[in-house]
Amino acid sequence: MGQIFNRNPEFYSADASVKRERFEEAFVIIRQELVDAFGSLGLPTDAQVWYTRNIDYNVPGGKLNRGISVVDSAEILKGSSLSKHEFLQAAVLGWAVEFLQAFFLVMDDLMDKSILRRGQPCYYRVPGVGTISVNDAVLLESAIYQLLKLHFRKEPYYVDLLELFHETTYQTGTGQLLDLITAPEDSVDLSKISLEKFRLIAQYKTAYYSFYLPVALAMLMCDIPPVYRSRSTGTTVHSYKLARSILLPIGEYFQVQDDFLDFAGTPEQIGKVGTDIVDNKCSWSVNTALAAASPEQRAILDDNYGRREARMEDKVKAVFEEVGLRENYRTYEDQVYAKILALIQDVPEDSGLTLKRQVFTHFLDKIYKRQK
Amino acid sequence: MGQIFNRNPEFYSADASVKRERFEEAFVIIRQELVDAFGSLGLPTDAQVWYTRNIDYNVPGGKLNRGISVVDSAEILKGSSLSKHEFLQAAVLGWAVEFLQAFFLVMDDLMDKSILRRGQPCYYRVPGVGTISVNDAVLLESAIYQLLKLHFRKEPYYVDLLELFHETTYQTGTGQLLDLITAPEDSVDLSKISLEKFRLIAQYKTAYYSFYLPVALAMLMCDIPPVYRSRSTGTTVHSYKLARSILLPIGEYFQVQDDFLDFAGTPEQIGKVGTDIVDNKCSWSVNTALAAASPEQRAILDDNYGRREARMEDKVKAVFEEVGLRENYRTYEDQVYAKILALIQDVPEDSGLTLKRQVFTHFLDKIYKRQK
Repeated sequence: MGQIFNRNPEFYSADASVKRERFEEAFVIIRQELVDAFGSLGLPTDAQVWYTRNIDYNVPGGKLNRGISVVDSAEILKGSSLSKHEFLQAAVLGWAVEFLQAFFLVMDDLMDKSILRRGQPCYYRVPGVGTISVNDAVLLESAIYQLLKLHFRKEPYYVDLLELFHETTYQTGTGQLLDLITAPEDSVDLSKISLEKFRLIAQYKTAYYSFYLPVALAMLMCDIPPVYRSRSTGTTVHSYKLARSILLPIGEYFQVQDDFLDFAGTPEQIGKVGTDIVDNKCSWSVNTALAAASPEQRAILDDNYGRREARMEDKVKAVFEEVGLRENYRTYEDQVYAKILALIQDVPEDSGLTLKRQVFTHFLDKIYKRQK
Repeated sequence: MGQIFNRNPEFYSADASVKRERFEEAFVIIRQELVDAFGSLGLPTDAQVWYTRNIDYNVPGGKLNRGISVVDSAEILKGSSLSKHEFLQAAVLGWAVEFLQAFFLVMDDLMDKSILRRGQPCYYRVPGVGTISVNDAVLLESAIYQLLKLHFRKEPYYVDLLELFHETTYQTGTGQLLDLITAPEDSVDLSKISLEKFRLIAQYKTAYYSFYLPVALAMLMCDIPPVYRSRSTGTTVHSYKLARSILLPIGEYFQVQDDFLDFAGTPEQIGKVGTDIVDNKCSWSVNTALAAASPEQRAILDDNYGRREARMEDKVKAVFEEVGLRENYRTYEDQVYAKILALIQDVPEDSGLTLKRQVFTHFLDKIYKRQK
């Protein structure tokens, strides 16, 4: 079912590990550009070593899904393999997304007092780093604009790239604010959370930068016009708006999965121990459980959610099982998948510089029924 | 002596308090634009209240020297009063500088564990804020690009404004990094600091954003060409490079004053209690004292600098007095003032869209022999 749309094998043949490898090769170039630029400032060696470690510790070690999806999207939109130069440009945009993510994760981990990230201690926990990580995050953000200037200054869409990163930073910061003030550490009040708030947080904190940003970057690079007339349907297509109207729901779906796996996934599966319950998070799971809970179950959630004790976390998990959260999730996934497929099928499919359904099915296929 | 250059009373007549008032009136407009934009996102009321408090707590309460100097510089470069529209544009750029400063100060105060800022508790110390201040800082930075987009999107120099803010953010973050790793909290090693390091920190952390940025913004707004031929001297003027070559030394001079006042100023004068000595800072004062210290005095500095005890701070201050730091400062100030004046007198003075000496003397006059 996840393969319902045929892929064109001609330009979509490279397997995942080869793609990742090529994408990582581009990082070597990008990293050197940044280190050289810093080196040219005439600062002491210890500052240069620090700056380089900041990049190496925080940027390259993740799954790289967001970054690679810029390259994938550009390839699909172009309809053929990328030239060497086009590949590098798409990869720079992909790495810029990864730098944006690193910027936010370094700060988030400090704010959330997280312990591990990608299997290693969170950056702020590295001896001697601490709150200096905040300033290092700013330097990771600066790297985005240095890379864009180096590689895109002469492109007619340069200013659109800058504005897109500015806007996404604002949206992600807004989602982070909502997340932080909705789940304060010291005061648990389940009447303050709702599925509506969950959706807003998912949209602003995750969906814009993880799903809309990579596709919009590829669209800019491939010169997809913001407005065009579809030859196949005769309708006017507002391409960026249309892309957003599909990618934000995909991002929300992704966050639902994340929240469900935080509860139901094993550490072997998800590579970490879920902490949403003890962290008092406004997750899909707790909001869905609240909607289905009896007064007795509700009382148990009120008394035990967002507390640090394992015994209390277990009580919450028992209620999640009792209200049938697993079944609820299966139903949700089937429905949302069908709904998003329908949205995608409404995209007019035209030749030339236009949106392509495959950009969206590519994302949907990647996450449908994911277990990690 | 500070008034050596005559001011043209026609366009330089408004006194400081009137100027500040007009500049603050522009803030009312700007603040509303940002609050409205945030309001349009459809977020809960508590998020809107939080966002507004973030701006109100951190942006408008400072001396506003940096922001107002954009307006002043624009007026000088234009050579006549600004129109209402021009004033608003210059004020928006000035407030963008103030937002940039707020972005950095909110983070710096958390990183430095500072107590007071502008006579009130540092933002991270407000109950319920804590490390959420880091994300709030990001939203203050985002405001810069929202304002530029709202007010300058159609200007031919829009992309130059964006790049200038990106570059200045990078420079300031770099200076902050240097400052933080040069003065680690737990390990004092005076052999690691030097006047050269002091100069680098002053340049990157302070001079670019406080002195070069406001003037460069005004130059962009007033269409000063980056390269022109001076009619008065026949030489080629690289205007931004020339401005930087004067404003960075002014910024370094400003930082020397700051460091000297941190030691010698009374709390009544400077509005705070100096903490450079106990904070192990790489200040002008300690580096100048080190250069003049006898082996015995050096030993006292080694044993007592950067320690939290008042008794040890007093011993350091005694050495500062013994080596004649006050006299040293007077000599420095006379020499640097003469040196910078000479730099300014080398600026070719032409009519039309060109640099004007008064832009620089305006800054120099403002800080010469300042006591606070």
